[in-house]
Amino acid sequence: IEAGDSAALRACVAELHEADLGDLIGALEPDDRVRLVELTGRDFDFSALNEVDESVREEILDELPPETVAEGVRELESDDAVELLETLDEAEQEEILEKLPMRERVALERSLLYPENSAGRRMQTEFIAVPQDFTVGQAIDYMRETPDLPDRFYEIYVVDKDQHWQGAISLDVLLRARRPVALAELTDEDRRRVSVLEDQEEVARMFGKYNLVAAPVLDTQDRLVGVITVDDVVDVIEEEADEDLKALGGVTSDEELSDTVFTIARARFNWLLVNLATAFLASSVLGLFEGQLEKMVALAVLAPIVASQGGNAATQTMTVAVRALATRELGSSNAWRVVMREGLVGLVNGLAFAVITGIAAVAWFKIPGLGIVIGLAIICNLVAGALGGILIPMALERVRADPAVASGTFVTTVTDVVGFFSFLGIATLWFGLR
Amino acid sequence: IEAGDSAALRACVAELHEADLGDLIGALEPDDRVRLVELTGRDFDFSALNEVDESVREEILDELPPETVAEGVRELESDDAVELLETLDEAEQEEILEKLPMRERVALERSLLYPENSAGRRMQTEFIAVPQDFTVGQAIDYMRETPDLPDRFYEIYVVDKDQHWQGAISLDVLLRARRPVALAELTDEDRRRVSVLEDQEEVARMFGKYNLVAAPVLDTQDRLVGVITVDDVVDVIEEEADEDLKALGGVTSDEELSDTVFTIARARFNWLLVNLATAFLASSVLGLFEGQLEKMVALAVLAPIVASQGGNAATQTMTVAVRALATRELGSSNAWRVVMREGLVGLVNGLAFAVITGIAAVAWFKIPGLGIVIGLAIICNLVAGALGGILIPMALERVRADPAVASGTFVTTVTDVVGFFSFLGIATLWFGLR
Repeated sequence: IEAGDSAALRACVAELHEADLGDLIGALEPDDRVRLVELTGRDFDFSALNEVDESVREEILDELPPETVAEGVRELESDDAVELLETLDEAEQEEILEKLPMRERVALERSLLYPENSAGRRMQTEFIAVPQDFTVGQAIDYMRETPDLPDRFYEIYVVDKDQHWQGAISLDVLLRARRPVALAELTDEDRRRVSVLEDQEEVARMFGKYNLVAAPVLDTQDRLVGVITVDDVVDVIEEEADEDLKALGGVTSDEELSDTVFTIARARFNWLLVNLATAFLASSVLGLFEGQLEKMVALAVLAPIVASQGGNAATQTMTVAVRALATRELGSSNAWRVVMREGLVGLVNGLAFAVITGIAAVAWFKIPGLGIVIGLAIICNLVAGALGGILIPMALERVRADPAVASGTFVTTVTDVVGFFSFLGIATLWFGLR
Repeated sequence: IEAGDSAALRACVAELHEADLGDLIGALEPDDRVRLVELTGRDFDFSALNEVDESVREEILDELPPETVAEGVRELESDDAVELLETLDEAEQEEILEKLPMRERVALERSLLYPENSAGRRMQTEFIAVPQDFTVGQAIDYMRETPDLPDRFYEIYVVDKDQHWQGAISLDVLLRARRPVALAELTDEDRRRVSVLEDQEEVARMFGKYNLVAAPVLDTQDRLVGVITVDDVVDVIEEEADEDLKALGGVTSDEELSDTVFTIARARFNWLLVNLATAFLASSVLGLFEGQLEKMVALAVLAPIVASQGGNAATQTMTVAVRALATRELGSSNAWRVVMREGLVGLVNGLAFAVITGIAAVAWFKIPGLGIVIGLAIICNLVAGALGGILIPMALERVRADPAVASGTFVTTVTDVVGFFSFLGIATLWFGLR
């Protein structure tokens, strides 16, 4: 197909949904991607580029002449256009914006001025606003006569003469009403709305909670400036879930499957370096007890079990805590109840595993006291892990750090240090070593 | 408020959105929850119960008389009703279904027959279907005259006389068309559709990919039986993200913030028990080298560093792999490229940390050979971790196990065992211990 048969390609590409076209681009070799865009020319739907990995998108946009990109951007809805332009640096953005007609250019520039991850960046500026004194018939006629409507819409908005938002009317309500009815009778003034500066995560939470399909976006003077639709919100929810998951796993959220080995290795290096530092810290606790380890080598063999068991219990607590903080289920109102509960869960499982581990340790090394020592250490470490697992994410949230990113290191450091220290400390006392 | 002032409560509850009412119920003491439902009687919106944790929902439904529940269920849309009934066991479901009118009862029973997590369970059976030969005007009149329409809808469906699905028409398209236009001209026959038996995760992926707001659900004979709307899909996406995140953290997905200490402790116990077994396995590797550990206690102090560094690198790889498998970004077409890439990332970071750790180890213990030994072990373990982190989730996916649930244990077992064995094995050879 890549033999340059432009007509066949055009026909094929024109039939594809943008998402499938995106998949196709992702599967092609890098050189063929740009050729595909060039060969299909005006039939290429640039929104497909928003469906591919960011590194691929950047690569393609860098290769294409700015005229072609500007042409493609013109065809897009404003939110897709903004998403595409976000990939580029400011100079490149400028170059493309210059080639657009005045009106579209100003609209896009304004959208790009809003902070990243704000509702203003996500919204589309194409929407249907009708004056308060219209009837249903007038509104329908207006929609039939205006050619330049958004591709897809689910509700229309009522505004006063200064564009101040007055309320929303869903299409199904409009359809069921008779033509002479005044819009004022149908308008829902309590509809949830969004401020341009609101964080997209907050917006997604609102959509999820109230089952919205679209929400009007208002500026600081309550003027209607755009609309956010649920398909953007679905993307946000997926992104946020992705971020939390990757952050807990020690991976940066912008890592993509199409990145090169060195990009990935470099991005993961930092996290591993932090981990190395904490691992040395934990081992320095072992170093404090070198004498005891030499005298009773069973301690060296068993110490990692105490640390690992505490680390896993702490990770369970931390996972629940990070998730509950992200969904706002955990807040100041129930914080202490949850902390108490996690502490108790740690204690209950600590007792259970103290018995199991104690018996196993005695069976292995035939040293009776060892069971009691490791049991006590397990209890200490599971309680410490539980408290660390809940308090550390909460503290990070307090100081406005992302709990998902940083909790892991701190929490396992706590359980490694407490695990080694309690086990070897109790052993020193019990066996009178030193 | 709980002093029994029913009128004031009714007024207050009637004004609240179901999601806010759900929050209110969650914040109340258990006894007050049932009283709230009883006091507000017919003003209570049962869909609020779908907004609270499952354990709370179960508790309330168990306390209420079946008549009250049946009354509440009648008012709900079919998908909300099914969600509510799912909470109950079969005998209780039966008791409530018996009290419903024949038609609703049959519809609900049929929905409950579909497998859990299938599209059939999630769909609502209220939808608008019109015959092929209608005009736009006829369709609009039909909607105006039928009182029993769904609360909210975004598209209507065209069916033949045997209820076979023919296509969909979005409301905005319908609104913009003139009354005499035949529906056949507007019908989109290629609209994405869903089979009743399809997994809800698959449905969510389709909605996300193609930016859908609603999709018709067809039975095995292509008859239209329901519609899935995007608000249900948003819930599914959140649930799935929740499941993956919790599974990676070793927590079962049905754990909720309102569960009791013992419920939680018991649920987490199993995972910790598995971890304990693997920790003993790893320590038994240390046990093999007891003699060497006694002769050179520095090995006991440093061994956890090798294991921990490998474990963290493996967790990074595993997180990416699990996520990519869940989003279908990783499949058989790019599997080997990704495996190769992860192996190389492991090698690159292995080399980097071999140098750093080696220098640190020599600086600490002043034994020159130790740097080389720990460096080689780190390289082995990071490569092993990378391969384990990608191959284990892929293998689990192959045998249809959930990679998110089981990968963690296997992967860290690999890095603990390989870490201890390579470090102590290389040390034995290098220093001629034994």
